[in-house]
Amino acid sequence: MQDLKSEYIYCSIAGNIEKQIISGVLKMGDKLPSVRLISRENGASISTILQAYYVLESKGLIEARPQSGYYVTHCSRLLPSMPSTSQPNNNSRDNDIDSIIARVYAEMGGSDNLIFSLGVPSRDLLPTAKLSKAITQAVRELDDCGTGYEPVAGNKRLRRQIARHSYTWGGNLTEDDIVTTAGCMNALANCMVSLASKGDTIAVESPVYFGILQLAKSLGLNILELPTNARTGIEIEALEKELQNNKIKLCLLVSNFSNPLGSCMPDEHKKKVVDLMEFYNVPLIEDDLYGDVYFGSHRPKSCKSFDESGNVLWCSSFSKTLAPGYRVGWVAPGKFKDQIIKTKLFHNITSTTITQEAIGSFLENGRYENHLRKMRHTLHANCLNFLRTISEHFPEGTKVSRPQGGFILWVELPHSVNTMELYELALRHKISIGPGRMFTSKQQYNNCLRLSFGMDWNDTVRSGLEKLGFLAKTLV
Amino acid sequence: MQDLKSEYIYCSIAGNIEKQIISGVLKMGDKLPSVRLISRENGASISTILQAYYVLESKGLIEARPQSGYYVTHCSRLLPSMPSTSQPNNNSRDNDIDSIIARVYAEMGGSDNLIFSLGVPSRDLLPTAKLSKAITQAVRELDDCGTGYEPVAGNKRLRRQIARHSYTWGGNLTEDDIVTTAGCMNALANCMVSLASKGDTIAVESPVYFGILQLAKSLGLNILELPTNARTGIEIEALEKELQNNKIKLCLLVSNFSNPLGSCMPDEHKKKVVDLMEFYNVPLIEDDLYGDVYFGSHRPKSCKSFDESGNVLWCSSFSKTLAPGYRVGWVAPGKFKDQIIKTKLFHNITSTTITQEAIGSFLENGRYENHLRKMRHTLHANCLNFLRTISEHFPEGTKVSRPQGGFILWVELPHSVNTMELYELALRHKISIGPGRMFTSKQQYNNCLRLSFGMDWNDTVRSGLEKLGFLAKTLV
Repeated sequence: MQDLKSEYIYCSIAGNIEKQIISGVLKMGDKLPSVRLISRENGASISTILQAYYVLESKGLIEARPQSGYYVTHCSRLLPSMPSTSQPNNNSRDNDIDSIIARVYAEMGGSDNLIFSLGVPSRDLLPTAKLSKAITQAVRELDDCGTGYEPVAGNKRLRRQIARHSYTWGGNLTEDDIVTTAGCMNALANCMVSLASKGDTIAVESPVYFGILQLAKSLGLNILELPTNARTGIEIEALEKELQNNKIKLCLLVSNFSNPLGSCMPDEHKKKVVDLMEFYNVPLIEDDLYGDVYFGSHRPKSCKSFDESGNVLWCSSFSKTLAPGYRVGWVAPGKFKDQIIKTKLFHNITSTTITQEAIGSFLENGRYENHLRKMRHTLHANCLNFLRTISEHFPEGTKVSRPQGGFILWVELPHSVNTMELYELALRHKISIGPGRMFTSKQQYNNCLRLSFGMDWNDTVRSGLEKLGFLAKTLV
Repeated sequence: MQDLKSEYIYCSIAGNIEKQIISGVLKMGDKLPSVRLISRENGASISTILQAYYVLESKGLIEARPQSGYYVTHCSRLLPSMPSTSQPNNNSRDNDIDSIIARVYAEMGGSDNLIFSLGVPSRDLLPTAKLSKAITQAVRELDDCGTGYEPVAGNKRLRRQIARHSYTWGGNLTEDDIVTTAGCMNALANCMVSLASKGDTIAVESPVYFGILQLAKSLGLNILELPTNARTGIEIEALEKELQNNKIKLCLLVSNFSNPLGSCMPDEHKKKVVDLMEFYNVPLIEDDLYGDVYFGSHRPKSCKSFDESGNVLWCSSFSKTLAPGYRVGWVAPGKFKDQIIKTKLFHNITSTTITQEAIGSFLENGRYENHLRKMRHTLHANCLNFLRTISEHFPEGTKVSRPQGGFILWVELPHSVNTMELYELALRHKISIGPGRMFTSKQQYNNCLRLSFGMDWNDTVRSGLEKLGFLAKTLV
């Protein structure tokens, strides 16, 4: 009798919540009331409420997030489809990326602009106060208070922690495998300067982060953009063809939650690419800048975890998760360590000691994991809120990436929309976006844009995004 | 009568001190007792003692240093002569500089070695505690505690102070003329990457700091070493000839107290070189790393102060005067600012905020000038002590540079001495030196060595230097 009653109760609770979700009262990204609260309100036991939530979870309507609670994952209307695999046109005219970027950056300073165009998380998401304490502590604990040179490879405490943290993706690194750098771009720059020279060709995803394009171009490298899928990353067949043709000197891939496409290479792709690159003896620079900011149950592996010969240079930084201004990144350069160390020594001597030590100590005490857990929840909820708002307010035919981590969305508007025009129009409404043309060395992606959701979700952001959709509709 | 007596007293006091100096009781570099103390001991007035010191000063026996006192400058025996102008042999075989440097650096870690080979001042000479306070203050005062990105050009407070400080050499810079970098080598690297590419030729002094050689070589540049005078720097006729032959893409000069030769270009040389470079439209990278550490009455000018067209890229850092581990340097790139900013952005995005802000605030309050004053006195005294000890204990025929700033001596031993052998021999006695071969891309300077005097002068240092002289004698 008791069992029957409780069955009735949990079904009834689940049914009520389901109705709210389907009708859109509870929206994708919303947090459900806590189990304890519902239990109190319904006069039912905790286990009954949990049962109700399990039902909803099994229907794909909600999702549990450890130490945070339950969130709505169902969207009351169909989400836009994902962008199709890119077909970069490497034969088109060169794209004047510099002037577009200069334009976008010049307007970013406008303090009351709503900035969807910036590739770093907003300050509210970073553990600023705790890091400041770590700085003070670093100055106290370091030899000579951090005024002296450290080993060229970088701060030992930090390197040990980075190596230790690599267990999260099945890595097996030691501190001697790591060379610290002034952020991830500096790691990529070090790799490119060390392994390629003027006239060489570097293969990259398409669309691709503009900083990579600018760097490669400034070093006189030819850029080969390869077809890329918004879910699984680079198309392996396309890569293999170019390797067979012996055209590539270097390859750079953003393996997890790429910027701007949001793709995450499945494990079997990672392994295949690593094997291919090794077979053709072409080094792979892996940019794993976003790997720690996953929305799922565990961190995706890196290509490095499949690398047995040392052919992968695994690069990352703390700029997207802790403090961009500290300029702390690293590379695990495998068999290229001697060259990487030399380039670092010749260009920089050593890295700044104090900021590395501070982050090293921050990682030691589990504070990094705690911080990441919160940050991931926020970003995941933001992502769902962005997706929902886009599905509701952007022009019909809009396609959107569905990243499982990071804080960046790639939006394909109908072909008639030119996002450079949308950029100018949005700016007049104090909204800044990243036009698609920023993310290619060729003439393409004119109808695309990049949106960052690395900020607190609130009414200003929501209504800004709605406004952006409205403006896009006027350009269709 | 009173006058006659006081005249007798000051002459007598001056005479006594002169005897002590000539006989070597008071040695070059020794500090004289304070005027107050001598006055008390001799029962004479302060002004009488000052008169005695003026007499000694006018004879070139002693020297006043503001806020420090009087020092013996006369050497009881003839100082070794200066090295002759270098005649670099650009046609000789390439020098395997990397393995020599690796050897020297590998042994530097030996903590009980006496390190004459290091190019940074010892920790005792740096204002570590005050800088630590400045770091704490920076974290407190900065937006977001310094976790955010700053403008690509660098921290504003620091740039303003560097610009302001340029008045010491007649500079007329504003904060907008400065781009900060991760130390001076990073400034030089930025300039080379921005202005030259593989196959281009860069003209430098000879001997020259090995880091410059390694950097240029790693970028695929050809290195042209030019004849250089230990007092006046690069030979202008030689430079002009190469400019006429249209062979040089870039020129890099260490204008003040060069490493390792210690030369300081006279003002008229600086002006002439700047005019020449401009006439031939070849950019001049000026490395002015040691300019603030002068022994004379005022800071020497930089080439930049004669630059009207923006053709000089003036580079320096705080690594030799405040904190190598902070990695804070800069370049005033003149008309090349756009390129320098781009290279910085592509390779580093921005610099570390906190260390720049800390040094900026350190400069604001006159603390930098106070610190430099003390540091200059110490280094000048060290220089004199080193020169005296070398003159007394090194082989006959030894030549030594006579730098008027910095903390580096260039020693030419008799031609029969191979300083690579001396290096190995000295190392067995726990003394590390910099063999001459480190400072050239060609086969030369085999009988030369570099000694750093950037440390506290004490009995260990003195007897180590004496031992080094003794060992050198065994190799003649």
